[in-house]
Amino acid sequence: MELPQPDGHVIARKAQIVERLTAVLPKDAVIHETSEVRAYECDGLAAYRCPPLAAVLPSSTEEVAAVVKICHDMGVPVVPRGSGTSLAGGALPTADSVILGVARLNAVLETDYDNRFIRVQTGRTNLSVTGAVEENDFFYAPDPSSQLACAIAGNIAMNSGGAHCLKYGVTTNNLLGVTMVMMDGTITEIGGAHLDSGGLDLLGLICGSEGQLGIVTEATLRILRKPEGARPVLMGFDSNEVAGACVADIIKAGILPVAIEFMDRPCIRACEAFAGAGYPDCEALLIVEVEGSDSEIAEQLSLIMDIARRHDPVELREAADADEAGRIWLGRKSAFGAMGQINDYMCLDGTIPVSELPYVLKRIGEMSKEFGLDVANVFHAGDGNMHPLILFNANEPGQLEICEAFGAEILKLCVEVGGCLTGEHGVGIEKRDLMNVQFSAADLEAQMRVKDVFDPNWLLNPAKVFPLDVSQDRRAAKLAAQ
Amino acid sequence: MELPQPDGHVIARKAQIVERLTAVLPKDAVIHETSEVRAYECDGLAAYRCPPLAAVLPSSTEEVAAVVKICHDMGVPVVPRGSGTSLAGGALPTADSVILGVARLNAVLETDYDNRFIRVQTGRTNLSVTGAVEENDFFYAPDPSSQLACAIAGNIAMNSGGAHCLKYGVTTNNLLGVTMVMMDGTITEIGGAHLDSGGLDLLGLICGSEGQLGIVTEATLRILRKPEGARPVLMGFDSNEVAGACVADIIKAGILPVAIEFMDRPCIRACEAFAGAGYPDCEALLIVEVEGSDSEIAEQLSLIMDIARRHDPVELREAADADEAGRIWLGRKSAFGAMGQINDYMCLDGTIPVSELPYVLKRIGEMSKEFGLDVANVFHAGDGNMHPLILFNANEPGQLEICEAFGAEILKLCVEVGGCLTGEHGVGIEKRDLMNVQFSAADLEAQMRVKDVFDPNWLLNPAKVFPLDVSQDRRAAKLAAQ
Repeated sequence: MELPQPDGHVIARKAQIVERLTAVLPKDAVIHETSEVRAYECDGLAAYRCPPLAAVLPSSTEEVAAVVKICHDMGVPVVPRGSGTSLAGGALPTADSVILGVARLNAVLETDYDNRFIRVQTGRTNLSVTGAVEENDFFYAPDPSSQLACAIAGNIAMNSGGAHCLKYGVTTNNLLGVTMVMMDGTITEIGGAHLDSGGLDLLGLICGSEGQLGIVTEATLRILRKPEGARPVLMGFDSNEVAGACVADIIKAGILPVAIEFMDRPCIRACEAFAGAGYPDCEALLIVEVEGSDSEIAEQLSLIMDIARRHDPVELREAADADEAGRIWLGRKSAFGAMGQINDYMCLDGTIPVSELPYVLKRIGEMSKEFGLDVANVFHAGDGNMHPLILFNANEPGQLEICEAFGAEILKLCVEVGGCLTGEHGVGIEKRDLMNVQFSAADLEAQMRVKDVFDPNWLLNPAKVFPLDVSQDRRAAKLAAQ
Repeated sequence: MELPQPDGHVIARKAQIVERLTAVLPKDAVIHETSEVRAYECDGLAAYRCPPLAAVLPSSTEEVAAVVKICHDMGVPVVPRGSGTSLAGGALPTADSVILGVARLNAVLETDYDNRFIRVQTGRTNLSVTGAVEENDFFYAPDPSSQLACAIAGNIAMNSGGAHCLKYGVTTNNLLGVTMVMMDGTITEIGGAHLDSGGLDLLGLICGSEGQLGIVTEATLRILRKPEGARPVLMGFDSNEVAGACVADIIKAGILPVAIEFMDRPCIRACEAFAGAGYPDCEALLIVEVEGSDSEIAEQLSLIMDIARRHDPVELREAADADEAGRIWLGRKSAFGAMGQINDYMCLDGTIPVSELPYVLKRIGEMSKEFGLDVANVFHAGDGNMHPLILFNANEPGQLEICEAFGAEILKLCVEVGGCLTGEHGVGIEKRDLMNVQFSAADLEAQMRVKDVFDPNWLLNPAKVFPLDVSQDRRAAKLAAQ
């Protein structure tokens, strides 16, 4: 994938930029030595690397505002970074940019159990938000697989989901308000701890905007009461199509489990070897979890098991106890790591209508043969969010390129059946050129005009989300007009 | 409230405008006689009236596009209208505008039970969306009190809620995609029948934008499986504060009933007289409804009744059967009509953090004495969406003005405690000048710049949402720049 041309004028003024940043931040919060900025050269999409001009680690919203004001005045691009776990290159620097890391912004500012919200700084990790309220039996619902490491800032940027989002919704459904620093240094509040807001719904617009509109430093998040209990059931089937049909039937019946996770044979094998979860040896596995009181669990499971039985499962097993439930989930949550021990892989992220699952799995199987690369499928089947893993050998020249071409075809297929290029990983650099597949030029123009409103000089998180040629033209036009 | 100055140049060209509209629509779809346009002179906020220049009733998205293109080219403001049930003047015409009514756009375009969505034209009424799927045991969740009459177009414009939105969310949580006609006649698709979307979340921005950004002609809506059963419980208390504390405790306990409705004494009396629902004679009444299977209902009700008992209720009664449940809801859903038989009233709409309920009710009581006007309170207490009804005598000169001043103070109080000017009725003309209370000039400027992107000439639904002086200045500047 092409990296953008950096702005030589900015790079030439590095010393001056660092000097001005050091004037508003503690010395250890400005990182500019070549050896040290390397730590920020990539995120979770590690195939692409580019060290930034510098990196800063502010500790307050005011420090963030001071930093971006300097960058704004000096025409320096800013790349916001949560924990750097993006799988789409959402935090990849450009050579002329300052990385703005929010890792030091990790405080809990307020918890309010009466109104069921928590207000945190956005560098706080996803899991430690739940950590702050769990002794009072509350939790924060969105649970990306990277939840131990990923920051709320990144969750908001990508509108992250997770295995349990079928019932509780994704980040945008659990975000009540933000404090955001605009690129000119203005600090603004959007939303709040209440229902709805007058005027335009800018909060929904901010969530999922991948750092294109502003830098979110504080967030008010909905917290929920922990359910009394939860229990997963394992279902094995002898084909992907039958497993897909079973998912569609559960959804169609109007039952709402907290999670329906799907794994195919390559993935089952890798996870079983890694976690010893007791997965059956079969073509396709579903993990369906329900929660509530004992009687609610029993009732939902009975309906779900009835549906499963109509699809001739080769295995149908409730977790007998908490230990077994824990192992079942450990297997699923380790899927990416377990596959990584066996193979290099590229993790895709797209969404499709649930009823298209059987067709899409069949087509991916056919394409796998055409491209000559195996695919392991693991995904949030209940809401149609797929994560096909394309297996390849990174040491063999040309394989990465074949892998990328194959991935692009899978994502085009998602769009073709009425789905979408991305589910929860965002567009980043990975899918920016595929935006043309999903959106017309007029659609993209409308989105870019909205960015013009928030970031008129196109300094925020450059070269992402929009097709590279389009966004570079846009930025050049803005520079020329100044 | 001040009505805006119409554009004399537009009015002078009425004959020419009507001629061009008649060229693209059937003759009976263009209404322009003075006696006939009167039918469109107001909406549910009937204190304000202004006949439009003309009204059109297109039957397809293409006809809508043809109409707005003509209006765009001729500089004619367009006021979109669903069923005209807005309580905030959201569909009030200006004298120089064309009313674009979507009443003839009422077809069901697609139902898909596998993927749980329905696609309809937006003139279809809210209740008839459920009507189209109920024989298959599905329903559409948002249920505004006006659901028999109100159109999906208006629900989207105002992001409408309803009694049962505590559990199922409001319109924005149940809207998957739209077909929208931009003011220049471009037809665009936003979202679709899948999770999430790449790029900016324009769908969330459109929902609740009160006809400021485009005209939504088709909508893809989430449909849900009907619950097995539902049962309301009545709780009477001897003070508003205690009832409010009980609501806060239910929410805090993490229980999620489908509805928690609140009525105070004046409202209880009116509804009981109207519907004979068997409401107790007390200061404050809660209707709490839970749903699910018999055992789920029993379990949730037992937790809720335990909490209620701790607040010394004067009445605590489960509906014994479907008949009694029906009467209980008939009383609540007739509240506005029942009050209207006794008194003129102004219905407010604001939201507050649930924990502030007792304080806000106390302050409203105090203000009621200061302004010398009685208030009846009826609202969706579970999510903090209040609907105080200020009672007044419309035939007594000056009372409407006092009523409006009192209403403004109540809405300011909502903002002061961390809530919001509006819950589900929108800003319209009613609350446009209060937007200054909730938003700074910079906030409003950001919102208006987003409108600039979608409607550069400020022709769509003029004089609404933004403070009148601000939006008139904006439009004048746009005209001058042409």
